[in-house]
Amino acid sequence: MGKNLTTRSEDYSKWYNELVVKADLAENSAVRGCMVIKPYGYAIWEKMQAELDRMFKETGHENAYFPLFVPKSLFEAEEKNAEGFAKECAVVTHYRLQNDPDNPGKLRVDPAAKLEEELVVRPTSEAIIWNTYKGWIQSYRDLPLLINQWANVVRWEMRTRLFLRTAEFLWQEGHTAHATKAEALEEAQLMNRVYAEFAENFLAMPVIQGTKTESERFAGADETYCIEALMQDGKALQAGTSHFLGQNFAKAFDVKFTNNQGKQDFVWATSWGVSTRLMGALIMTHSDDNGLVLPPNLAPHQVVIVPIYKGQEQLEAISQVANEIVKDLRMRGISVKYDNRDTHKPGWKFNEYELKGVPLRIGIGPKDLEKRTVELARRDTLTKEFVAKDEVVDRVALLLQEIQEALYTKAKNFRDSHITTVNTFDEFKEVLENKTGFISAHWDGTSETEDKIKELTKATIRCIPMDAEQEEGTCVYSGKPSPQRVLFAKAY
Amino acid sequence: MGKNLTTRSEDYSKWYNELVVKADLAENSAVRGCMVIKPYGYAIWEKMQAELDRMFKETGHENAYFPLFVPKSLFEAEEKNAEGFAKECAVVTHYRLQNDPDNPGKLRVDPAAKLEEELVVRPTSEAIIWNTYKGWIQSYRDLPLLINQWANVVRWEMRTRLFLRTAEFLWQEGHTAHATKAEALEEAQLMNRVYAEFAENFLAMPVIQGTKTESERFAGADETYCIEALMQDGKALQAGTSHFLGQNFAKAFDVKFTNNQGKQDFVWATSWGVSTRLMGALIMTHSDDNGLVLPPNLAPHQVVIVPIYKGQEQLEAISQVANEIVKDLRMRGISVKYDNRDTHKPGWKFNEYELKGVPLRIGIGPKDLEKRTVELARRDTLTKEFVAKDEVVDRVALLLQEIQEALYTKAKNFRDSHITTVNTFDEFKEVLENKTGFISAHWDGTSETEDKIKELTKATIRCIPMDAEQEEGTCVYSGKPSPQRVLFAKAY
Repeated sequence: MGKNLTTRSEDYSKWYNELVVKADLAENSAVRGCMVIKPYGYAIWEKMQAELDRMFKETGHENAYFPLFVPKSLFEAEEKNAEGFAKECAVVTHYRLQNDPDNPGKLRVDPAAKLEEELVVRPTSEAIIWNTYKGWIQSYRDLPLLINQWANVVRWEMRTRLFLRTAEFLWQEGHTAHATKAEALEEAQLMNRVYAEFAENFLAMPVIQGTKTESERFAGADETYCIEALMQDGKALQAGTSHFLGQNFAKAFDVKFTNNQGKQDFVWATSWGVSTRLMGALIMTHSDDNGLVLPPNLAPHQVVIVPIYKGQEQLEAISQVANEIVKDLRMRGISVKYDNRDTHKPGWKFNEYELKGVPLRIGIGPKDLEKRTVELARRDTLTKEFVAKDEVVDRVALLLQEIQEALYTKAKNFRDSHITTVNTFDEFKEVLENKTGFISAHWDGTSETEDKIKELTKATIRCIPMDAEQEEGTCVYSGKPSPQRVLFAKAY
Repeated sequence: MGKNLTTRSEDYSKWYNELVVKADLAENSAVRGCMVIKPYGYAIWEKMQAELDRMFKETGHENAYFPLFVPKSLFEAEEKNAEGFAKECAVVTHYRLQNDPDNPGKLRVDPAAKLEEELVVRPTSEAIIWNTYKGWIQSYRDLPLLINQWANVVRWEMRTRLFLRTAEFLWQEGHTAHATKAEALEEAQLMNRVYAEFAENFLAMPVIQGTKTESERFAGADETYCIEALMQDGKALQAGTSHFLGQNFAKAFDVKFTNNQGKQDFVWATSWGVSTRLMGALIMTHSDDNGLVLPPNLAPHQVVIVPIYKGQEQLEAISQVANEIVKDLRMRGISVKYDNRDTHKPGWKFNEYELKGVPLRIGIGPKDLEKRTVELARRDTLTKEFVAKDEVVDRVALLLQEIQEALYTKAKNFRDSHITTVNTFDEFKEVLENKTGFISAHWDGTSETEDKIKELTKATIRCIPMDAEQEEGTCVYSGKPSPQRVLFAKAY
């Protein structure tokens, strides 16, 4: 196809890296582990943001903004949270640069401008937010507090990959405060369901909802809910998490409220987030060896129109038809780009939009003008059809729906065919060597067994599924009793 | 009014600080100079963002995202820019914290985790962006590059005030690249006009467009365009700037392109930004001693409905009418909140929404039910009227327009009556002592005179107005010849 894209079967990881760059989604920057999100990639992220933001507001949340920096004394207040993030955080120690006397034209840190207290660039904002909530919450009348923040965060990861794991990433983090444990638990579960709904309806990505084991929980949480997806290489990807934080942060920051019986109690908390990692999940769920495949609900352009012409006269005649279609599609709320650039040939454009995953391409040539037809090409199936010009808008509207559903169904069939139930550790290892995907197996509930399995196979427990039936069994590794199956997989 | 708000005449500065906090817009945080933007304040900022984003896209710009950090070697590449920002920047020097052996339970910077090269938290992104553009621009076909970024930036200011000057603030920064000087100049001017249009149509804030003098220019710019507004205390506020950067950054980062004659040249650049400072400008332009006054185009709730009732039965009857009005207003695209909380009395609510600047308040009591009327109160004029229930939606729609226009007219009249033309330095000083506001005066064009006037009066040249007529005269301070008047003022 002339895209010089490594194929998935050749080298899945290389295919992904190349695709992200070639489809103009993102690239590495001069800062170790930090990416530049390019306009085309950012346009997809904006569509995700808009939809999530709408869903958060519909469930009663408001946006706010808290500082980028967390003073060290606040950072260390919730011990487990601090322990979890201290090893990989960016620390601001100085507030000025000065001319370097040893290197003319160069700057150096001014030793006289050392901060009294170091500032951690937020890896997550529980600490700074709960320190703020202390001033906002006195009585049960101040609860619940349902707040979300769109922000950048920094985790100094050693091994990074565009979108999937970057030192700086963009995300949203919800932070809510409640009067009762039950209400906080309900909120954490609700937001996990919101994430699942978003993933399935917009990313066309089937997910499994579940809870994390203790060792995979968010640092500082009593329970972590998650949505887990399966990529085409059979590896799992954690696409979003929602945490029930108990009273841990309220205790660390002394946030109490007076309940409606006049008694004081610590406030109950949740936090939940999804990030630009979803971009990686989106890419890996649907794309193929020809490039990106985008679900219509998130595609910056749902349709592109390419004129096929020789000479100005033909272009003008085609443009007249194209502009009518553009107008009609926009009236139907369909986003469309008419690419009439004369700097590139139609073949180049076809290739380009295939690489960029535009769901539908309309080609119009001189013969189409005669016949009053257009050529309609689907990106996901690479199939083409001729459609009467007067029917094109209806056909496009229908196809966009069809594509959205087809992508979900295809991904779900793949995912479902890659969940293997095993009863012995030999079967377990065999799946990892051949078919990969999720493994449904009994586990004795201990961190020791979990660690041992990870050490031996690199597979981790992705989640304890929410809707799994209780089934007595014996642990696939230790042979000890187990009350239900959990899902293992190698993961991103 | 029971708001315990310091009045503007008592202490304007205190009035502002109290208002920002009491109206739930923002508050200081645990991090020196950094603010928390509370949900109500953030909702106004979101409305500003949405509108600006629409205007940027309409003028052909796309959003992208670049790293938070600028490696020191890139930061220092454009000398003037580096010099301008080096004195007040947050510097990341380490990437890990560890347990402090001397203080159990505390953390300290891990001395072994020192970065090879320090990272500056972006005070502005020209350096990291132009280093990236180097890889994106080869030929004139890659130009113009019209990109905007919504981001947080950090400038370690010593004296901070909520919204007006904070160590971290939110903004958008446009960064464009062009093939010719003329095109870049046109872009810088266009975006300054976009800012002016936004300020006038949405903030209802009249602005003067002009250029900055050399000493007030952005560090690294060849020309800075600006919009300048006047606050109620007679001090000026720079509300937005747009910079023509010449080839300065292209040269610093070696960004060349091949033009359509096959010759190599450095790329021409612009950058432009507005920030959460606009929130401060909005507050100070319209608000009064009773609290915030919001223009309808930016108010999170344009209308609030308060029921006045005794007992559940009355509330239910009123709620029925209120909910009909809510529905009808929403159908017309008007945002409305029905506050039927039984935890607060109507008087408390009236006070609260006055403080929060909701443009229109609808009160409904038992007598209104009988008469099929509602009481409509305007926040800006504090006037009330009774309106037949069936006419309320039309009346509200009309009043919202009227209020938007009235606020602009009022602010413009105030601004226009506070531009004083002076011809001597005594007159100049007299204005600053009494009436304040903008002073239109001749200036000899030298930085020496500008500095001297600043030293003597604290007034600076806010701008050389775009539309000012050329008028020969003599400098108000030095007596030397001057080709046109400029605008001086004390400023935020």
